[in-house]
Amino acid sequence: MYQISVQTRARTELVDITSQIAGVVSEAGIGDALCNVFVPHTTAGVTINENADPSVVHDILKVVDSVIPFHDPGYRHSEGNSAAHIKSSILGCSLNVIVEGGSLKLGTWQGIFFAEFDGPRSRKVWVSFSALV
Amino acid sequence: MYQISVQTRARTELVDITSQIAGVVSEAGIGDALCNVFVPHTTAGVTINENADPSVVHDILKVVDSVIPFHDPGYRHSEGNSAAHIKSSILGCSLNVIVEGGSLKLGTWQGIFFAEFDGPRSRKVWVSFSALV
Amino acid sequence: MYQISVQTRARTELVDITSQIAGVVSEAGIGDALCNVFVPHTTAGVTINENADPSVVHDILKVVDSVIPFHDPGYRHSEGNSAAHIKSSILGCSLNVIVEGGSLKLGTWQGIFFAEFDGPRSRKVWVSFSALV
Repeated sequence: MYQISVQTRARTELVDITSQIAGVVSEAGIGDALCNVFVPHTTAGVTINENADPSVVHDILKVVDSVIPFHDPGYRHSEGNSAAHIKSSILGCSLNVIVEGGSLKLGTWQGIFFAEFDGPRSRKVWVSFSALV
Repeated sequence: MYQISVQTRARTELVDITSQIAGVVSEAGIGDALCNVFVPHTTAGVTINENADPSVVHDILKVVDSVIPFHDPGYRHSEGNSAAHIKSSILGCSLNVIVEGGSLKLGTWQGIFFAEFDGPRSRKVWVSFSALV
Repeated sequence: MYQISVQTRARTELVDITSQIAGVVSEAGIGDALCNVFVPHTTAGVTINENADPSVVHDILKVVDSVIPFHDPGYRHSEGNSAAHIKSSILGCSLNVIVEGGSLKLGTWQGIFFAEFDGPRSRKVWVSFSALV
């Protein structure tokens, strides 16, 4: 298992970690495998989306923040970050990407994003590789 | 493939199955692997979130139940559980967790939850393990 | 890695690709493995849900399309498909299914769906297999 660090800078933010994950693939000397990206936090997640036009990330956060309210009189969790927990479950904290010939195999417009929902914070991402058949 | 059983007790409920999954890891004698947790139902899911403060689970269900309405005049599915199907797709029915040295490797606050959206029912969860490289 | 093609026919649509994935399992001669299904697009996703009653798919799309608005004055992405990007992140583009004895192991009511959110288009799905332990 490999670990990368992510420093987030806002309350909610999508941080492009594609090149960091690619760096792990490289360091680990992986040829062909299935790469698992896992976020060990309960107020953050991981997602794949477009990393060409930054307005896509803006719009994702805008809608997610508007559908899942930061404040709600019915929230019981006393830390004030219930919305972050909910968003974490909705986006998920685990996904897989194929590695082929030593490179992450992503679609043309795809990047891997760390999804911060309760920042800014210092975060970790765990990366592991499964053997293909 | 291994199977665990979950008895849910409410219409919507997050049931902490972390220790049951850890039990499978143990029984199966797994050292290092990637554990896949799969829910073979279409009105339930699986998610990872905080299992320390039960108010987190309360708040997740509260918002999910409020964003995805139980009743909607536009629903066509005649069984009356359309909301459960929708929530299942949003949370997902498949996720991966690293196993290292015979233990599930989760973040400090993370637990694995069976997400019931059309209970109470008797449910199954399937667990399998991929070889790491 | 294997690839299948999907021709979508509507703006938003869930296309049942279970038999196409089963065809890949068959062609590849896979016995027991973990099958990864990956969508290399940023305005589409993959999900598992009921494929017996088509009204389930109708209701999923209805609610998703209503919670994530097609038009919003706050959207910045100029291509007009921000909603599709958001839905892609919410459903996800990567999931795993067990293969046992040469067959996809799904629950009784489960099918695998390609989730089109910005169609109609010609799409691809990537399929790979991890070795079980």
